[in-house]
Amino acid sequence: MQVYLDNNATTMVDPQVVEAMLPYFSEQYGNPNSLHKFGTSTHPALAKAMDQVYTALNASDNDDIVFTSCATESNNWVLQSVFIDLVLNGDKNHMVTTEVEHPSILATCRFLEEQGVKVTYLPVNDQGVVEAHTVRSFITDKTALVSVMWASNETGMIFPIKEIGEICKEKGVLFHSDGVQAIGKIPVDLQSLHIDFVSMSAHKFHGPKGVGALYIRDSQKLTPLLHGGEHMGGRRSGTLNVPYIVGMGKAIELATTNIEETAAKIRKKRDRLEDAIMQISDTMIVGDRENRTPNTILVSVKGVEGESMLWDLNKGDIGASTGSACASEELEANTVMLAIGADNELAHTGIRLSLSRFTTDAEIDYAISHFQNAVKRLRSISSSYAVQQPTKGGEAKDCELHHP
Amino acid sequence: MQVYLDNNATTMVDPQVVEAMLPYFSEQYGNPNSLHKFGTSTHPALAKAMDQVYTALNASDNDDIVFTSCATESNNWVLQSVFIDLVLNGDKNHMVTTEVEHPSILATCRFLEEQGVKVTYLPVNDQGVVEAHTVRSFITDKTALVSVMWASNETGMIFPIKEIGEICKEKGVLFHSDGVQAIGKIPVDLQSLHIDFVSMSAHKFHGPKGVGALYIRDSQKLTPLLHGGEHMGGRRSGTLNVPYIVGMGKAIELATTNIEETAAKIRKKRDRLEDAIMQISDTMIVGDRENRTPNTILVSVKGVEGESMLWDLNKGDIGASTGSACASEELEANTVMLAIGADNELAHTGIRLSLSRFTTDAEIDYAISHFQNAVKRLRSISSSYAVQQPTKGGEAKDCELHHP
Ligand SMILES: Cc1ncc(COP(=O)(O)O)c(C=O)c1O
Ligand SMILES: Cc1ncc(COP(=O)(O)O)c(C=O)c1O
Repeated sequence: MQVYLDNNATTMVDPQVVEAMLPYFSEQYGNPNSLHKFGTSTHPALAKAMDQVYTALNASDNDDIVFTSCATESNNWVLQSVFIDLVLNGDKNHMVTTEVEHPSILATCRFLEEQGVKVTYLPVNDQGVVEAHTVRSFITDKTALVSVMWASNETGMIFPIKEIGEICKEKGVLFHSDGVQAIGKIPVDLQSLHIDFVSMSAHKFHGPKGVGALYIRDSQKLTPLLHGGEHMGGRRSGTLNVPYIVGMGKAIELATTNIEETAAKIRKKRDRLEDAIMQISDTMIVGDRENRTPNTILVSVKGVEGESMLWDLNKGDIGASTGSACASEELEANTVMLAIGADNELAHTGIRLSLSRFTTDAEIDYAISHFQNAVKRLRSISSSYAVQQPTKGGEAKDCELHHP
Repeated sequence: MQVYLDNNATTMVDPQVVEAMLPYFSEQYGNPNSLHKFGTSTHPALAKAMDQVYTALNASDNDDIVFTSCATESNNWVLQSVFIDLVLNGDKNHMVTTEVEHPSILATCRFLEEQGVKVTYLPVNDQGVVEAHTVRSFITDKTALVSVMWASNETGMIFPIKEIGEICKEKGVLFHSDGVQAIGKIPVDLQSLHIDFVSMSAHKFHGPKGVGALYIRDSQKLTPLLHGGEHMGGRRSGTLNVPYIVGMGKAIELATTNIEETAAKIRKKRDRLEDAIMQISDTMIVGDRENRTPNTILVSVKGVEGESMLWDLNKGDIGASTGSACASEELEANTVMLAIGADNELAHTGIRLSLSRFTTDAEIDYAISHFQNAVKRLRSISSSYAVQQPTKGGEAKDCELHHP
């Protein structure tokens, strides 16, 4: 049995999505910007995809949704263009973000710091979440942008986006949220919130890798990142990737239609896995279940290196992660665990398990049994764990966790 | 019969390319950056695609080839990053390009002008080509970059890239070429040339829309455009689009293996079409055949609006263009025709016909007969053409064309 529990890194493309995309490779292959039938025959499919995204997000007709090549592009676009519009060509010089953003935000912020922008990286609480009042306290009249993720890729924890949006609105500061890990996992209603920009990526909800979007509230001005042939109303140039746009529309529709029901099913399986893991002594799971995306577990297993665990699971055909796939080529401490105040040992023992709507009960059974055995095996050869025995068993949610 | 003669706008994805991509949607769907099998099982296919591109371009092992989401991204990347590296954080302030570049260069240059960069837009000669000595005469010690396209999307004319490369090397100025219309159409050997950066796009050679690359000679430093998870050696972040990268590798291999042979076949069909069009009185074809990509014809038909011609061809199920697809939503004069010195009337009568290796002889027959009839029909209702009759017939290559 193969068990894929790394759906926060990427997901399988839903076969229905592949089916929807296929006609646009070798049959309706025209360039949508062409005036002839080969081009214009793609328009209905593109319009449908656009509608599917608007509907899924409950965006308003006044809002723009611009397809991009990925959420990394959407994130870079917002940050770099706010820099150009409000710092380079304006009188702002400051941005607010968090310590636990995805590298596509953090690395862009570091780049902007080199260009003279002051960036505040907000700390998280012991749940791994930035509190809204913390955001408020760091906004100044020089602040151009607040960028806070909607849900964490590492922990699944959901951030107080509604409250932060209200604060930004009150302060007159632009608000961006990296919605990659929220959209398709939890209900999202953009008309009920005050967010200026939301990034998303299709491959996190069973669409293809290499297509994303940026939601732009009220068609807010934003210098393009990609200048050129004035595609997407001049907001993002480059020949339209018709198959992937069609695929993203289909994928977001499939992910968000009856989302409560689907989420409940995933949550049930996740909770069963989580309960079983908590039965193992000296394990710690980050963050309240209730305020977490329904598919994610970040667990720390005392005495077991994350990489060793990953390797053991991999031998059992289980795909998991020590954290963000982007950072996973290096043997590093989990930065989110460090940010929530875990000590260095704990931060090296994080394992992320992330389910999808394709995860079956049989797979969860298999994963539970393999996980339990792996912990036994690895602890039996762990020098650091052996000497500490015996210690308290059962749930160890709060052990060693303190906010700095 | 449907005849697609707009292959400079985009091409049909070769069914062999679709076949190569398919396993990477719902079977081998892992994130290549993940450490488990689901991720690492994609590595051989990615390595193969990379090899296919290196081989096709005869790039050296010291060179970098970085996959991007399109040539628009590649073009923006080079121009914007040279701006950051050498203008914003250096002592240069000038770039040299041409009047006839694709909008993804021209619009980026206009954006950079707003940021204080001085841009020289070089004129073209009556063949629609920038001469190397013209480039030399505009380079100053403040010049950060020369960007000259390899072949024109509108005319197919091939630019003196080798000579310009040598001039830039001699002057110590970075040289970028938009290779979109050259790669896959004419033999390209990057080791025999001095070009620092070359942009390319898969959908121009029967790969998918939404994947391109940037060639970077000798791993030249260049600030990333997309910051993030350090994908592609830190040069371009964003989860790798495995299917499209695999598809681009396959597509470039198919396009460049035996390229001389394939090009000769396409050229033969193109020349037959061109000869037939030149039999019609008062038509003008831009540029010498010999120095043109083998698939392209830009023809001006006196007295016939480009848009009307396009419409008539479209009714006959023939897809053509009045020029760049990007600009084709507006009823504008063909900017390249204006740049080569055509008067305003001529510039409104341009029709671009572009073939591919899938174009058949039967399609050419059909196109010839339809084109001839369309000209007759449209001229018979053209007030402007009627009053000028009779005029000289046959080839009218040089009529009204003069370099300003
Ligand atoms: C929270 C978050 N933001 C951004 C990204 C980047 O998405 P993409 O790979 O589409 O650029 C990811 C995943 O990689 C993510 O989890
Ligand atoms: C010469 C040239 N450069 C750049 C581009 C842009 O390519 P893409 O659509 O992949 O961004 C095109 C075609 O659209 C082109 O013909």
